[in-house]
Amino acid sequence: MDEFSLIDTYFNRNQIPRADVILGIGDDAACVELKPLHQLVVSTDTLVECVHFLSDWDAYDIGYRSVMVNVSDIAAMGATPCWALLALTLPNLNKGWLERFSNGLHDALNQFNIRLIGGDTTSGPLTITLTLQGQVLNNKAITRSGAKSGNIIWVSGELGGAAAALKRTPRIPETHYQRLQKKLMAPVPRVDLQPILAQYATAAVDISDGLSADLNHICRRSKVGACLSLADIPIHPLVEKYYSNPLTFALSGGDDYELCFTTPAHYKVELVQAGLYPIGVITENTELTGLNEQGEPVSLVPRGFKHF
Amino acid sequence: MDEFSLIDTYFNRNQIPRADVILGIGDDAACVELKPLHQLVVSTDTLVECVHFLSDWDAYDIGYRSVMVNVSDIAAMGATPCWALLALTLPNLNKGWLERFSNGLHDALNQFNIRLIGGDTTSGPLTITLTLQGQVLNNKAITRSGAKSGNIIWVSGELGGAAAALKRTPRIPETHYQRLQKKLMAPVPRVDLQPILAQYATAAVDISDGLSADLNHICRRSKVGACLSLADIPIHPLVEKYYSNPLTFALSGGDDYELCFTTPAHYKVELVQAGLYPIGVITENTELTGLNEQGEPVSLVPRGFKHF
Repeated sequence: MDEFSLIDTYFNRNQIPRADVILGIGDDAACVELKPLHQLVVSTDTLVECVHFLSDWDAYDIGYRSVMVNVSDIAAMGATPCWALLALTLPNLNKGWLERFSNGLHDALNQFNIRLIGGDTTSGPLTITLTLQGQVLNNKAITRSGAKSGNIIWVSGELGGAAAALKRTPRIPETHYQRLQKKLMAPVPRVDLQPILAQYATAAVDISDGLSADLNHICRRSKVGACLSLADIPIHPLVEKYYSNPLTFALSGGDDYELCFTTPAHYKVELVQAGLYPIGVITENTELTGLNEQGEPVSLVPRGFKHF
Repeated sequence: MDEFSLIDTYFNRNQIPRADVILGIGDDAACVELKPLHQLVVSTDTLVECVHFLSDWDAYDIGYRSVMVNVSDIAAMGATPCWALLALTLPNLNKGWLERFSNGLHDALNQFNIRLIGGDTTSGPLTITLTLQGQVLNNKAITRSGAKSGNIIWVSGELGGAAAALKRTPRIPETHYQRLQKKLMAPVPRVDLQPILAQYATAAVDISDGLSADLNHICRRSKVGACLSLADIPIHPLVEKYYSNPLTFALSGGDDYELCFTTPAHYKVELVQAGLYPIGVITENTELTGLNEQGEPVSLVPRGFKHF
């Protein structure tokens, strides 16, 4: 099996039709057409074996996750994901692995109506780089730099579950642990929040490195600070139940792929009704502070995964 | 040095200004604006240590080449390269290596007015995936599938030099060998041919795997064959001079990043005057044949680099 039949067998199949794909897999480059009055939004993420996933992970999960982490970046821009390119480096040609990997990849792509339009397949240490392209109405991309003092800080869901799955505690029963593992293996990027972000958000980021690290990106780019009400941070109930330091998982854990975003304060009621969690306010001073249940300030050092 | 200061220090600098970049490095995703009546063209290429380059290559050359191989794909579509994303996996943080790599990368990007708008930096085995985006006038992308029986086959320059550099012969003096090495390390993608392709070409491909393998892509996608006049294939003069099998390097060598394209026969004179080389004709039968200097048919097995 050469590179071309590998691509035909595993990747150029089960594809959803998209009328905006002028030229998909199989040429020097792909060609697509954006909607009128829309701009291109693009993000790339690499998953490396033993760094981003373990060797014993099911290839289905690796394929699925490689899409979802990118979809989350596009969702954080308030944009709609459309087209993907896969750069896949493989140590060998393992048909069973490729079958499961491509099933996970296509299941994830199809869930968001994304079409795989190209890529590159090479031999080498297992590395997956997915580049995802989306579109957003002209000048409506939601950046990290628009947060203003007095804005409310929101998160879109319970945090800490994915990170807790990486540090199993003996106290947790198998069925409950599997629920945490699902948060890690199959995150659900919040593309569904696109209309809410478009209407309300001044800044947004996806929570991949951990809430404090990712909120810190908003603060640095917006030249503001943040004060969090620690008791208001939604924590995954199984982390609350079985772990001794649930807040640490929620603040520094990462891998949840919920969104953190800011809005003017007067939108508070509608967003709470939409199931979103207000967790603090943007401040003029550039510090990241937490208030504990007694209302005492606690300095938050932004922590996330460091590669080097 | 964390991932963010690494990006600021080595990658978000020396950047050419582009008014169409709405949001560059530093957010969840980048955002750019296409010209009116243009479509997006996109290509991705991975370079893996010990597969695509050797460990002793200067990092400048690796960075430079990673851009050029992608630019060549965009050039083969008759499109203009515009924006790049870099997914860089590094075994460690070697500042000298990063300095040279990023110098090569930026020199290559700036040469074609391309802006680096995003990427991902991770730890792991040295792997470079560059994704390049360009734009082309609506429905004017030149594909591999438009070649018609009777079309003339062209190549844009002398072939075999890059491949010969990988197989040094003792007969070649150092200064001449360095000229071949330059063909390998610093290919010059033929973006300059964009107006000619737009006006004349029915199909095009860049010569990365080797002339016979890449021309075979055109034949397969266009459902045609090709008959080459072997004596008309332009071979790098130093390969002619020092190697015993120059035609093999030209036919199967790859890495030259010249273009191979087809045009209707009546354009022949203008294109010869433009310095392009007619090397054969597209045939109705789907075989790839060469005619030797005696006019006898020689079957050409398309050969190129096989990863698995």
